[in-house]
Parts: sequence; C-alpha cells; structure tokens
Amino acid sequence: MSRRVPDLSVYLVTDRLLARGRELVDVVLAAVRGGATVVQLREKDASARETLELGRALLGRLRPLGVPLIVNDRVDLAMALGADGVHVGQGDLPPVVARRLLGPDALVGLSITGPADLSTLDPAVVDYAGVGPIFPTGSKADATPALGLEELARMRPRLPVPVVAIGGINAANAASVIAAGADGVSVVSAICSADDCEVAASVLVRAVRQGLASRK
Amino acid sequence: MSRRVPDLSVYLVTDRLLARGRELVDVVLAAVRGGATVVQLREKDASARETLELGRALLGRLRPLGVPLIVNDRVDLAMALGADGVHVGQGDLPPVVARRLLGPDALVGLSITGPADLSTLDPAVVDYAGVGPIFPTGSKADATPALGLEELARMRPRLPVPVVAIGGINAANAASVIAAGADGVSVVSAICSADDCEVAASVLVRAVRQGLASRK
Repeated sequence: MSRRVPDLSVYLVTDRLLARGRELVDVVLAAVRGGATVVQLREKDASARETLELGRALLGRLRPLGVPLIVNDRVDLAMALGADGVHVGQGDLPPVVARRLLGPDALVGLSITGPADLSTLDPAVVDYAGVGPIFPTGSKADATPALGLEELARMRPRLPVPVVAIGGINAANAASVIAAGADGVSVVSAICSADDCEVAASVLVRAVRQGLASRK
Repeated sequence: MSRRVPDLSVYLVTDRLLARGRELVDVVLAAVRGGATVVQLREKDASARETLELGRALLGRLRPLGVPLIVNDRVDLAMALGADGVHVGQGDLPPVVARRLLGPDALVGLSITGPADLSTLDPAVVDYAGVGPIFPTGSKADATPALGLEELARMRPRLPVPVVAIGGINAANAASVIAAGADGVSVVSAICSADDCEVAASVLVRAVRQGLASRK
C-alpha cells in the first residue's frame, strides 16, 4: 500500500461545544501552531451539512500546512471533503468497507476499547488504532470503562499498527501514556477547552517527547 | 439521465422500534406483499454497522422482487450496500454531493418541510421530494410543524419532481393526501405498527387509488 501513516504524536479531536465559544478553525489552527500533528473532525452535535462546512473550512487551512484531516465515522463526509481519511469505531461502518469506499491511499483508523476488540483490527486494512479510554473522560458520553496504563501496556504488543491513546489525557499524564507504549496522544478538551490552545498543544508535544525519552 | 423514478405510491419508511417486536425483514416483506412499492431504511437508533446488516438483509430480499431500497441520510451506507439510492434531509449532505458520490443512476430524494425549502430542490439532481410532515406525527422526534393538505396543494405545482407526502399519514387520510397532489404516501407507523402489515399496506394501496380517481 502506498499510504504512509503520518506523525500521530499529538492528535487533536475536535469538539466545538468544548471550545468555550471560540471558532473551531481558530482553535484548530492554534493547536497546529503549538505542534498538533493530526486533526480529527468529530462534531457529534452537528448535522452532516454543518460538519461538511466545518470540514471544508478546516481542510482549506490544514492542507497547505501538511496536517492531515481525518473525519470521524462518516465515510461519505470524508469522500465529499476529500479528507485524508476516516476514523471508525466498533459500531461504525467496518474498516474494510471504509477502505473499499475510500481507496488505498486514505487513512483508516479504528477504535479499540479493550482486549476483546484486538481481533477486529486487520493491519492490511487499518492504518492506526485509537485505544481508549485510557482514563475516565467527560468529553465522550458513550465511552466504555477506562483501561488504565497497565492494560494499554499489555495490549500494545498485540497491536500491529501505530497506536494513539485517547480518553482523559492531559499534560500531566501524557508522558506516562507514551511510556506505556502509545505512539501518540489524542485529546479533545485538553486542547479545545484550554485557555491557550497553542500553549496546550506545545505542552503535549513536550510531554510526548518526555515519554519517548523515558522508554529509551 | 438514465435513471427512472420508481412507483412511489406506497413508500414505506422503516422503524424497528415501532414494529412491536417483530423482525424488520418480516415487516418489510409483509408490506411489499400488500403492495408497498419502495422501502426506505431509516433506523435512527441503530449504529451504522447494525444498519448495514439490516440493509444487507433487506436488499437480499427486495432486489429479487424489484422493490427499490433507499437509505436515509447516509450516502456511505447506500454505497456500501449498493442500495438504489439515498434520501437526504435539509441538514444532511447536500443532494448535489450525494449525486456526485452515488453517480447518475442512483435515486436521490430530498425532504421538503415547507415553502422555504422549495428553492433547494434542483430537478437536475433530485429525483423526488418527500414533503412533510403533512399531519402531526409521533414517529419523528425532530419533525417541523405540520403543513396540512392546503399547503401541500399550494406547494405541489412548484415541485418539478414526483412528490411523496409524509407525516401522520394513515388509511383514513391517505386518499386526501393524493387528492391534494401527492404522487405517493410515505408511512412509518401506519405499516410498521399495524396488527397485519400486509393488510395495512394493501389498504393504503386502495386509498391511493381512490385519491387518484378523485383527481380525474
């Protein structure tokens, strides 16, 4: 396959409703200035049409910067936008269907919520795993129980693709998540709700570096 | 364009939760035996993956019968299924996007909830309009105010495509909806919740015929 998995080290998942009244594009661009490496568009309370408009605005700014935009759940939205890929959960369209619709060059990520999901990940189809929630989280209403760092470390060798950890990750615990084996940290409120989204992202970048250094 | 709009006279919209515990496939097949001419898969409480499975089961039974299956909202699901088309609302992906993704042969329907929506329908893109709610309805939580028969009759000449009326339609009022200018009646609970779904569909077929006769 010709696609290359991008740097997943600081993976921002959007949520307008947590952005404290700021424009989503401004929040995302600040995060990218701070060092966010990937953006996932996930606006559960927006209509498909609103999400399409948001995605167009984001893509117009992110593409020149070389930062990939991944769409949550909706393969059709990803196709309509010409986004870089899609992230699907266990209840969304199966990764193999997303791959078939999007073609070989798109990124396809899959949520892994626990050991029982490991068998659902085919590395010939899926480019990276979003593993979590690692810690309890307030920004996803339907989240499953927190896995914790030990379970993340146990699962990591069984995942044959890069791993982004998600769920309750912030500046204080990001290094420990990387130390436990994740390749990147995925955050919503740690950036979207921060006083300064650029600073918040840069602090996470440093924490990821610390975590990587601790593994050597 | 090569597509032909099918007979829309009795257009069933699915809702498992209104099917009183019966299997959706059984409800749909009974409705088709009774004369339902089109089926729209709309399962708002099902995951995309569940809807995909339901769609596969339905398509396997409907295609040999020549009854089109249209998917609500999700263009990706329609593509994954190889369904006959998609029905989008005003907040869903724009019809022109659905058309681009699905190609020239798919059916694309658009919801029209009042006169203000009329300008959104491009007959070069959209094959039929779903106009409603005509009457107050319990089966769509986010429905807009009921239009009534007079508004339907006023709007009809301004719609350059076939019209399916939806919202609170049943055996008692279906003929009046056709008399007001609709080409077909779209129902959820009038079939899904009926004691006998086949009989319920056949009663609607007769009511549509009566409505058409009253226009001559």
